[in-house]
Amino acid sequence: MNHKAELLQKIADKSVVVSIIGLGYIGLPLALRFTEKGFKVVGFDIDQSKIDHIESGQSYINYIHNETIAAAVNNGLKATTDFRQISQVDVIIICVPTPLSENKEPDLSFVRNTVQSILPFIQKGQAVSLESTTYPGTTEEELVSPFMEKDFSVGENIFVLYSPEREDPGNKNYTTATIPKIVSGHTKHCLEIAKNLYGSVVENVVPVSSTKVAEMTKLLENIYRAVNIGLVNEMKMVADKMGIDIFEVIEAAATKPFGFTPYYPGPGLGGHCIPIDPFYLTWKAKQSGIDTKFIELAGEINTNMPEWVIDKMKSVMNERGLDLQNAKILVLGVAYKKNVDDLREAPALEIIENLLHDNMRVDYHDPYLPKLPATRKHNLQLSSIELTAENVSKYDCILLITDHDNVDYNLLLNSGKLIIDSRGRLRGAYENVITA
Amino acid sequence: MNHKAELLQKIADKSVVVSIIGLGYIGLPLALRFTEKGFKVVGFDIDQSKIDHIESGQSYINYIHNETIAAAVNNGLKATTDFRQISQVDVIIICVPTPLSENKEPDLSFVRNTVQSILPFIQKGQAVSLESTTYPGTTEEELVSPFMEKDFSVGENIFVLYSPEREDPGNKNYTTATIPKIVSGHTKHCLEIAKNLYGSVVENVVPVSSTKVAEMTKLLENIYRAVNIGLVNEMKMVADKMGIDIFEVIEAAATKPFGFTPYYPGPGLGGHCIPIDPFYLTWKAKQSGIDTKFIELAGEINTNMPEWVIDKMKSVMNERGLDLQNAKILVLGVAYKKNVDDLREAPALEIIENLLHDNMRVDYHDPYLPKLPATRKHNLQLSSIELTAENVSKYDCILLITDHDNVDYNLLLNSGKLIIDSRGRLRGAYENVITA
Repeated sequence: MNHKAELLQKIADKSVVVSIIGLGYIGLPLALRFTEKGFKVVGFDIDQSKIDHIESGQSYINYIHNETIAAAVNNGLKATTDFRQISQVDVIIICVPTPLSENKEPDLSFVRNTVQSILPFIQKGQAVSLESTTYPGTTEEELVSPFMEKDFSVGENIFVLYSPEREDPGNKNYTTATIPKIVSGHTKHCLEIAKNLYGSVVENVVPVSSTKVAEMTKLLENIYRAVNIGLVNEMKMVADKMGIDIFEVIEAAATKPFGFTPYYPGPGLGGHCIPIDPFYLTWKAKQSGIDTKFIELAGEINTNMPEWVIDKMKSVMNERGLDLQNAKILVLGVAYKKNVDDLREAPALEIIENLLHDNMRVDYHDPYLPKLPATRKHNLQLSSIELTAENVSKYDCILLITDHDNVDYNLLLNSGKLIIDSRGRLRGAYENVITA
Repeated sequence: MNHKAELLQKIADKSVVVSIIGLGYIGLPLALRFTEKGFKVVGFDIDQSKIDHIESGQSYINYIHNETIAAAVNNGLKATTDFRQISQVDVIIICVPTPLSENKEPDLSFVRNTVQSILPFIQKGQAVSLESTTYPGTTEEELVSPFMEKDFSVGENIFVLYSPEREDPGNKNYTTATIPKIVSGHTKHCLEIAKNLYGSVVENVVPVSSTKVAEMTKLLENIYRAVNIGLVNEMKMVADKMGIDIFEVIEAAATKPFGFTPYYPGPGLGGHCIPIDPFYLTWKAKQSGIDTKFIELAGEINTNMPEWVIDKMKSVMNERGLDLQNAKILVLGVAYKKNVDDLREAPALEIIENLLHDNMRVDYHDPYLPKLPATRKHNLQLSSIELTAENVSKYDCILLITDHDNVDYNLLLNSGKLIIDSRGRLRGAYENVITA
């Protein structure tokens, strides 16, 4: 039996051993899903603490329960830092980060290091799938080429796939299993493996004609989002100058039953995807001598939003005769989006630093983040204050940055002297609320 | 009884006389709808031929049937050029064009001339509603101010409303009656009139807090569209450089069940709304010292698309060794969008002119436009050729600009030597089709 037929057979009878490299927001849910569907799964990570957590049935992601991890371990989920075990698996799925360097260029070091780590242990007949978001051509350049240099024949005795992750942490309507999954392969045989492999754990797979198309698809999704958020942020600034509440405008426009999809302005972009991924295309396009002007404009505008929100706050405080020096500010919500505990690229961190730099006194409240952990860029020694009427009334201004659902907004409205709302959460004619 | 109560009563018992000024793509369907719901309607236009058409039960818009006009006339619809009759009506709805001047500035002359025409005949107790798309502040500046100068008391003895049209010509799912209608008024009394007036002919009205918010809402809807089309046009150019079919990418991205809405690239923007309306905001924002960079970028990219499509065609023809001088080109589809006969701002006209200027020989086929009428910018003496295998095979290249549904695309595929498809209509691995 040839390698392709053998692998397809193993997928069909669930004897295939699936390894997932990178057990973060993407890899862990995927490992759990394969385990849930009866596959043998080995998770790999360079971070020993993730392995320890899994082995002791403990979650390290707030919306994944301990019980889910423990059940998966009971059903055979293994986790290890020992890449030699790659030689024992059939499928290798790479779910590592693809961040940006300081100068906004793609940092593929995690992908490259992973490929170098597994290369000595790769066996004929295996399939390797990349899930990380990246520019068109990455799968060919970073996976196909190294395998070919080691004299593998891609599509015959090794299979290279690209299937971009589409996870949406905190989304209650869609999960790993129900979000349609784009699949691609370097050859037709590779695509066949991709369709069967992913088809056995997700409801719908969407095959496309090349890995480049799949890479571009994921980027387009996130570029669309970054640009539309940039657009409404610009519209917010224009509307503000004209004395128009942009949130009322968006709500009204959203009643159009065709041709309009609402996006909402905010204090700046956060998370691992939207502020970062689009620039992967920018970099690659520049190599072809072409600009991606929408991406750069969206980046420029979204990056300026924290400053704009602060400026708006200051001008309102000035109008009301409040002293900015030593003003007491409460930042409400610091996670990058509501109802999660994720601080990656969160604009709240930049905002807090800027306020401190301006000699204001800053506290924060976030039900999901009792303390601000050190991040790559920030090291703020703050703990979440308790939200009581007494506490709230102490602040000259409350800056609403992240509108978590489990916050007592009536308490804020009743006891807050001045609330600057960057999310349009507190709509209505409240005298102490200003939209920013 | 006061003026407001009287007018509300007349609306309720359908004794109100509604006049519509401007009987084009917006005013005519609205006049028909009011008539259909049992109101007395008088249509006004400065174009006598529209009046003549209506009076003889003839339509002048392709998707409105003669029978519909004739039935409305039977039910009492009147039409006239005599603005003195304004003194006999209760409600005046203004549906006149708001184009751009040569230097992309708002041209409000139709609105202003209308106001001047009706001003001598305005009566206490009337309501005046503007439906034209325009920048925030127009209703106050162009309607409220002139009435106040004539000593009317807006909200007391005259009512000023703004309710932007949301017509989508050719849309089979939504009509004037079923598209929710944004309504606003200069005062609370005005808003009350607006809600009751429009609420009696459309299923859902969406009241907003000011005429400015309503003006901005309509602009945001069209800005969103212009920007998203600009974005996919840029993505098309990037993908083309990378050898990726953008239409396959968009189709794949559209399988994401949240967070993505597909827009499609094309040969340039057309129609009366999307290429024009956004610049109304640009102009007004500049007055407040603020730029609308997304609008300008979208304008720049969308404006360049006809040229890009031509360049792509030329480079494909060069690659295939075809002589550009005297090349025979068939432009397929000239209307600005599919399945309509509307040539306003249609990019096909610019494309045909440029090809002729480059000494190519150009014909066109469009099932909706047997001849190219003179437009404000173009005067091309061409007639639609018949689409036969013999005719089609004569051309060096077929440039698909508008993908009307009632075209025999198999004939094109079978007999066309080379097809440059700017709409992604002819998907699949056809050797004679290139996406542009």
